[in-house]
Amino acid sequence: MAIVVQKFGGSSVADVLRIRKVADRVAATKATGKDVVVVVSAMGKTTDELLSLAHQVCESPARRELDMLLTAGERISMALLSMALNARHVPAVSLTGSQSGILTDDAHTNARIIEVRPYRVHDELATGKVVIVAGYQGVSSKKDVTTLGRGGSDTTAVALAAALEAEACEIYSDVDGVYTGDPRVIPEARRLSEISYEEMQELAESGARVLNAQAVEFAKERGIAIHARATFKDTGETIVRKLAPGAASRVAGIASQKDLVLVELPADRFPSLLEDLDARRAGGKELVLRTAGRTGYASLVLSLENLHDYAAIRESLRARHGDALHLREGLGAVSAVGTGINASHENVRRALAAAASAGAVPIGVTTSSFRISLLLEDKGVEDVVRALHAALIG
Amino acid sequence: MAIVVQKFGGSSVADVLRIRKVADRVAATKATGKDVVVVVSAMGKTTDELLSLAHQVCESPARRELDMLLTAGERISMALLSMALNARHVPAVSLTGSQSGILTDDAHTNARIIEVRPYRVHDELATGKVVIVAGYQGVSSKKDVTTLGRGGSDTTAVALAAALEAEACEIYSDVDGVYTGDPRVIPEARRLSEISYEEMQELAESGARVLNAQAVEFAKERGIAIHARATFKDTGETIVRKLAPGAASRVAGIASQKDLVLVELPADRFPSLLEDLDARRAGGKELVLRTAGRTGYASLVLSLENLHDYAAIRESLRARHGDALHLREGLGAVSAVGTGINASHENVRRALAAAASAGAVPIGVTTSSFRISLLLEDKGVEDVVRALHAALIG
Repeated sequence: MAIVVQKFGGSSVADVLRIRKVADRVAATKATGKDVVVVVSAMGKTTDELLSLAHQVCESPARRELDMLLTAGERISMALLSMALNARHVPAVSLTGSQSGILTDDAHTNARIIEVRPYRVHDELATGKVVIVAGYQGVSSKKDVTTLGRGGSDTTAVALAAALEAEACEIYSDVDGVYTGDPRVIPEARRLSEISYEEMQELAESGARVLNAQAVEFAKERGIAIHARATFKDTGETIVRKLAPGAASRVAGIASQKDLVLVELPADRFPSLLEDLDARRAGGKELVLRTAGRTGYASLVLSLENLHDYAAIRESLRARHGDALHLREGLGAVSAVGTGINASHENVRRALAAAASAGAVPIGVTTSSFRISLLLEDKGVEDVVRALHAALIG
Repeated sequence: MAIVVQKFGGSSVADVLRIRKVADRVAATKATGKDVVVVVSAMGKTTDELLSLAHQVCESPARRELDMLLTAGERISMALLSMALNARHVPAVSLTGSQSGILTDDAHTNARIIEVRPYRVHDELATGKVVIVAGYQGVSSKKDVTTLGRGGSDTTAVALAAALEAEACEIYSDVDGVYTGDPRVIPEARRLSEISYEEMQELAESGARVLNAQAVEFAKERGIAIHARATFKDTGETIVRKLAPGAASRVAGIASQKDLVLVELPADRFPSLLEDLDARRAGGKELVLRTAGRTGYASLVLSLENLHDYAAIRESLRARHGDALHLREGLGAVSAVGTGINASHENVRRALAAAASAGAVPIGVTTSSFRISLLLEDKGVEDVVRALHAALIG
C-alpha cells in the first residue's frame, strides 16, 4: 500500500489543542486508505527548556547525557499524539528512533544517520496502525541514544520516506512553503511553487528555517520530493525537487542568520584551530572566509545555534592561542540564493550596492554556485535583507 | 569492589538545586572508594503533569503509550544528575531501564521485573563511573518500554542491588526512616530503628509511602537489607531486614489510605468482575472483604491510586451489571501493622473501641497475620489514625 510520511514540527504540537488538530489531519490522511507514518518533534519550547536545565547543573554537559535528556521531548509528544489518534478510534503506536531502526554514528548531539532498518515500522503498518516516530533521534552501535542536531526531525522524515519507499514526504510547519524571504521582515515576499534541492539547501544553511539542510541533502541523494506545507491551513505548498535541466538562472530567495562569531588566527595556527573544533564537534555550520582585514590571518565563522558549549570553546581557544586569537562576536549574515546566481558578477555588485544603500559595511563576502553571502554586524541584518530582496527579487 | 545502590525519589530531585545537593551526596559516597549505582525517579510532579496531559488528549490512553510518555520523566532527571556529577569532576553515565538490563513482563503501567542483566552497569562501573539508572522502568521482550507502577523506583533499586550483589541498598526520601505513624498527623510518632520485611510490606500496602511494597517483597526474597534515610538530613535511618526469630509481638505502626472504592455485587457475578478487572489490569491493590451488609453479596475494595482509568472501569462495570452493582466511593482505611498483632483478638477489640471513641463506624474490618484494617468514610481517617496510635502504640 502507498505510504505517506508526514512530519510535524515543535510548534505544530506545542500544546494539547494543537496535538488534537494534528491528530485530525493525520486521521483524515489515514481515511483516504494510505499507510501513514508520522514524525514528530518535541512540543514547542521543550528542547530549549531542557537545555536550560542542563546548563543550570553543568557548564559543559557531556554530549551523551545531553542526548539522553533531550530525547525525553519527543517521547512526550509522540505518546500524546498516539493517544489522541486512539481517542479518534484510529489505531496508532509510537516508536522511538531506536525502535524505528534509525541507526546513526556516535557523534552525540550532531549524529548522522548511517542506515534505516524500519522492520518494526513495516510490522506495525501491516496491522493497520498509524506509526508515530520520534524525530531528531536515533541509536548508535553502542546502543546509546543520539540526536541529529537542530532540525533533525526533517532528516528523520526524509530518511524514513526513502527507506520505506514512501509515495510522499510532507513536512508541516507554521508556514505554507518556502518564501523568497521571511514574510515577517519582507511583507512582499512570495511563496515559491517549487525549488531545487541545491537552492533549498543553500537557503537552509543560510538561515531559512522552513527545512533542514541535511534533510534536503538526504532527499536529494535519494530522489525524494519534499512537500513543505502549513499544519493549520490549506493555502498551498512548495515542492522541493530536481528541477528540469536548463532552467533559467534566478534569485530564489534571501535568508539571514544571527549569532555568528568571526574567529581570526595567524594562518599557521589554523590547522590546530580546526582540530580543536572537530574534537568538540563544533563543526557543521562554519564557513571559511577570505578576509582582507588582517594579512596573514585566516578566519572562520562559527554559528552559535548548534553549539551547546560556546563558552567552553572560547575559554579553551583563549587558553591555547592567547593574544594571537581575535574573536568578533555579535555578527550576522545575509545571503541571496538561486540557480546560476553567480554566472556573472552582476548579482554580487547589486548586492553590495544594496547593502551600502542600507548603510551596512560588509565585513566579508563569500560566493558559491548557488549563493552570495554578506557578513555584517547583527544590527544591520534586517535592513540589508529588505534591501537585497528589493534589488535582486523585487 | 563493594557496590552501593542509592535511590532518590521524585521530591529529592524536584529541582536543579536539589539535584545539585543529591550530586554532592553521591560524590561523597563515591569518594569513600565505593562503586556507586544511583536510581532516580522523575523530578517532583513530572509524572502527574504528564498523566494530566495524557488525559487531556484521550480519556483512556493505551497503556503502552502511557509508558512511552511517563518514561520521559526519568530520562530528564537522570541526565541532569549525571551532568551535575560531571560538573563536580565525578565521571558518570545515565542508563535507561533497558540499557541497565531491567527485563519485565509486558503488563504496561504495572509491569513486574522478571530478570536483571546488568552487564552494561558492570562495564560502566569498571571504568570508574557512577552509574545512574532510570527508576520505575524496564523493557519487555517485545522491546517496548514498560513501567513498574507507582513507587516502582524502589523496586528498581532493590532488584539492581540483588543482581549486583550490592553491599547496601539505600532508599532516600523526605523522611529519615519508617515511623510508627505519619508525623504530620501524629506528632508523637517515633522512628523505628528496624522493621521486618513483613511489617514493612503490610505498612506499605496499607498506605505508608516511605517504601514500596513490591520492592520490600523483592528485598525479602533476595535477602537485601534496605536502609531508609532522608536525602537532605543525617538524622538516622530505619533498616528493613529479617528480624531475629522469636521477636516479641508488637504493633509497629499505623498507616492509612484514601481514595478507596467499595465494589459490591451478587456473589455469582463476582468471577466475571475479577475477570474484568484483570483485563484492565486494575489489580495490585484490591482487598476482598467479607461484609455483613448485604447477604449474598461479595465485595472488593479498589484503590484509585494505581488506576489510570477508573472512569472507564466504572462505565464498563455499570454497563455490564446494571442495578446489581453497588459502588461506594470516597472511602478510606486505617491499618495497624505488627508482628503477632493478631495472636489474640485483643488488638482488634482495642482498635474497634478506639475507632468508636473517635466517632467512626467501620464499614468493614479485615485482619491478617501482620495487620488489622478498618474501612471507613474518607473524612474520619485522620481521627481514627490518631485514636489507633494512642490505643495500640501510645
